[in-house]
Amino acid sequence: MNTLKLRRVAIDTHKENVAYLHRDCTVYRTEGFQALSKIEIHRAENHAPVIAVLNVVDDDSITAPGQLGLCEQAFAQLGLEEGAAVTAAHAKPPLSLAAVHRKIAGERLAFDDYLAISKDIVANRYSRIEMAAFLVACAETGMEREEVLYLTRSMIETGERLEWGEPLVADKHCVGGIPGNRTSMLVVPIVAAHGMLIPKTSSRAITSPAGTADTMEVLARVNLEMERLHRIVRKHRACLVWGGTARLAPLDDILIAVERPLSLDSAGQMTASILSKKIAAGSTHLLIDIPVGPSAKGRSSLTAMRLRKLFEYVGDRLGLHLEVVLTDGRQPIGRGIGPVLESRDVMQVLNNHPDAPSDLREKSLRLAGRILEFDPDVRGGQGYAIARDILDSGRALEKMQAIIEAQGRNDSTPQPGHLQHRVLAARGGLVRSIDNLQMARIARLAGAPLDKGAGVDLHKKLGDAVEAGEPLYTIHAEFPADFQFAREAASQESGYRIGGEP
Amino acid sequence: MNTLKLRRVAIDTHKENVAYLHRDCTVYRTEGFQALSKIEIHRAENHAPVIAVLNVVDDDSITAPGQLGLCEQAFAQLGLEEGAAVTAAHAKPPLSLAAVHRKIAGERLAFDDYLAISKDIVANRYSRIEMAAFLVACAETGMEREEVLYLTRSMIETGERLEWGEPLVADKHCVGGIPGNRTSMLVVPIVAAHGMLIPKTSSRAITSPAGTADTMEVLARVNLEMERLHRIVRKHRACLVWGGTARLAPLDDILIAVERPLSLDSAGQMTASILSKKIAAGSTHLLIDIPVGPSAKGRSSLTAMRLRKLFEYVGDRLGLHLEVVLTDGRQPIGRGIGPVLESRDVMQVLNNHPDAPSDLREKSLRLAGRILEFDPDVRGGQGYAIARDILDSGRALEKMQAIIEAQGRNDSTPQPGHLQHRVLAARGGLVRSIDNLQMARIARLAGAPLDKGAGVDLHKKLGDAVEAGEPLYTIHAEFPADFQFAREAASQESGYRIGGEP
Repeated sequence: MNTLKLRRVAIDTHKENVAYLHRDCTVYRTEGFQALSKIEIHRAENHAPVIAVLNVVDDDSITAPGQLGLCEQAFAQLGLEEGAAVTAAHAKPPLSLAAVHRKIAGERLAFDDYLAISKDIVANRYSRIEMAAFLVACAETGMEREEVLYLTRSMIETGERLEWGEPLVADKHCVGGIPGNRTSMLVVPIVAAHGMLIPKTSSRAITSPAGTADTMEVLARVNLEMERLHRIVRKHRACLVWGGTARLAPLDDILIAVERPLSLDSAGQMTASILSKKIAAGSTHLLIDIPVGPSAKGRSSLTAMRLRKLFEYVGDRLGLHLEVVLTDGRQPIGRGIGPVLESRDVMQVLNNHPDAPSDLREKSLRLAGRILEFDPDVRGGQGYAIARDILDSGRALEKMQAIIEAQGRNDSTPQPGHLQHRVLAARGGLVRSIDNLQMARIARLAGAPLDKGAGVDLHKKLGDAVEAGEPLYTIHAEFPADFQFAREAASQESGYRIGGEP
Repeated sequence: MNTLKLRRVAIDTHKENVAYLHRDCTVYRTEGFQALSKIEIHRAENHAPVIAVLNVVDDDSITAPGQLGLCEQAFAQLGLEEGAAVTAAHAKPPLSLAAVHRKIAGERLAFDDYLAISKDIVANRYSRIEMAAFLVACAETGMEREEVLYLTRSMIETGERLEWGEPLVADKHCVGGIPGNRTSMLVVPIVAAHGMLIPKTSSRAITSPAGTADTMEVLARVNLEMERLHRIVRKHRACLVWGGTARLAPLDDILIAVERPLSLDSAGQMTASILSKKIAAGSTHLLIDIPVGPSAKGRSSLTAMRLRKLFEYVGDRLGLHLEVVLTDGRQPIGRGIGPVLESRDVMQVLNNHPDAPSDLREKSLRLAGRILEFDPDVRGGQGYAIARDILDSGRALEKMQAIIEAQGRNDSTPQPGHLQHRVLAARGGLVRSIDNLQMARIARLAGAPLDKGAGVDLHKKLGDAVEAGEPLYTIHAEFPADFQFAREAASQESGYRIGGEP
């Protein structure tokens, strides 16, 4: 047999399987393999092969002739020790690619097609360019709403599901795009203090400066074992954790690694992504927040309304009790952007601190109120008042402290990044607009969410009067290179428009 | 400044720029970079950066902290020595990606859009997934014929052009898909013997078992310097060389590296690809061969006719004198598939050998005849007879020998691969169909075109009577692993259908 010795190559290729073969390999001809672009690596006759894109190596210290190198991810999938004997073969394209080609040709696909594509992608049979082909074919004009439903179901079926054993499991989700929008960390303690079950699993930020999991991590552990998670939820009616421990709709995580660098953000993909994760997480009642504004996901009321209809169509057919609210997305929420700064805002609101950002408080109360109205005993229109009462009385703070203790309080208290730069107004007037995307970009360049203290602290919001030379916001960073990237971005484009008389 | 030491990483990533950064790099945070997926590498302030996808490394022997590794292709583009100081930054997406997003959304793009996209791709500013997004958005239903014209013009304008200084520069091209279809090596000497200028530049095989350049290389050098090429063409009126020396429509070569693994083969892309290469190569008169058959590019007369109209539309607007012929594409042409076997067939026809495959001879005479009719002095309908006379008289052989001598005769005469396996008929009857794609696949797996002697030698063609146990074809290979791949493929699916009574 034509075996090679397996070798682990310590390269993280960002969710693509890559195999490394020396150009002078005498067992296999690298050029013949490379033109076809993908190979199958077999560990034994009757075992599913690992499929990888091929890179050709000319350096024995990476992969020598007679060896087959695999990147970290592919090596882990094969599950063998270094030095194990493996064979390689030309990979046949996954069968479901035929459906992708039909989609490219403009056809409507059936549920079985989406399920087959989902299974092949989750089994790592697609290369990144094949995933890109699928995503583009489905983007924008390409997907009927029935197809969005099929994709959502396929995403759920190819992953695990959580089960909470109660008839009302509440959740909320924002379609994203608004920096500082940390309402979940207020909505969850308010709703749980009322007694409703709200086990909140969140993602970490991918291209934003902070996700709920990143910000919560400033205060407590968020990476919990499943058993402990269930114990906390049973006792406290809530949690605020990272959802990555369970394999909920894993297809979504894989596709995101291609969607984001392509800036693909179609309504269909977004709907399938959000609803599959929520249903897999066991939610029965879901509130979706669609911010509307020129630099928000919902550019106009019209696009937001279309998105709402799509959520409703798919949610209804999957037995989810789903409500959508359109909110003001013209500027960031609260003052801080980045984990530490956002957690400060959240704790100020919970503490009823006089400096607490009122927009974060009001939005959270409004969302919490709508969720409380999922409770059959709460009269329509009364939710807001109940939420406000829970927050003002300190019961929300008390619940949050209990959740933090249960998850494991973070003993060190991270501070805002010590490298600081104030961005000043070039002229006086009123703040006419704040660009969400640019503020997120600056905070991200400053090091958020990796450096917890990095980010942007806003001193002025929409409609505020400002004098020339007054600070608009402060950039915080922990590392010089990041600090420089963020300052450069802010000096090219501050993100603020100022006009009229103060 | 935040500089890193440049390091060359001896990995060939197949036409994608990849940068390697150690996970513990103290200058740049790899995770922050990786989420955005692309970085810019700068050698100096006012120099165009090289853009690369980022891989994160955990092995100092590949790239250590403080170093920036680049794959072979990106290292060559940056053009610096190892150890040089470089800086990195977050790459902004190329501006032309906005046009790709408009295309995804279903818009028609303008010439300026296609030109901007072409320039960015040729400058290596696109990742492979971005190219895939562009190709899929343009595939099948996505491109108006004006857009095909724009793309063709953009492909020509972003590369070099050859100039022959004569009013009639003939060329032929087959859209491909038919194994053994080596008519160019017969058409070129026939046409040149008549006195017409036909400087033939061909590609090497990408996913087929042999291109004209691969087969010609069995007989002579095909990789010639531009000056020598011009000298040969002036003297002999012809050449048969590899076109890769000049940068003719380089966009096409880059896109093919993504198109082929995706099996994207839309009419628009094919038209732009072929016509841009031919016009850049200086052709004024072009004959295009579209084989029609169930496993050919033209599946039916209807698809072939649509393709013909598209070629005519774009060719006419670019001032090309273009003729299209539809030919029989139901089976391979000649007997051999693979460089050595195909060159044997070609030389048998030139030598008027009694065993010469008659279908290869007839098709070549027909094509050569049509090209000869580009000559104003040749009466319509007389081309075939002139071509036959040139071939039968030995003047075509004489011209071929002159071309071989001028390019540099290959002294060693490669033989068909010594590993041989005969595939036998499972039953008797008449050969009802031969699958072009499967025969190409088997020849390719056997090692063609890299191993010149590898391939398939057909003993039976359509309509031939065959008895059970009689050989249908012989597989030739030079390496055991390839031999095994090819035999396995043939045993799973021979590619032949036999039915009825002998």
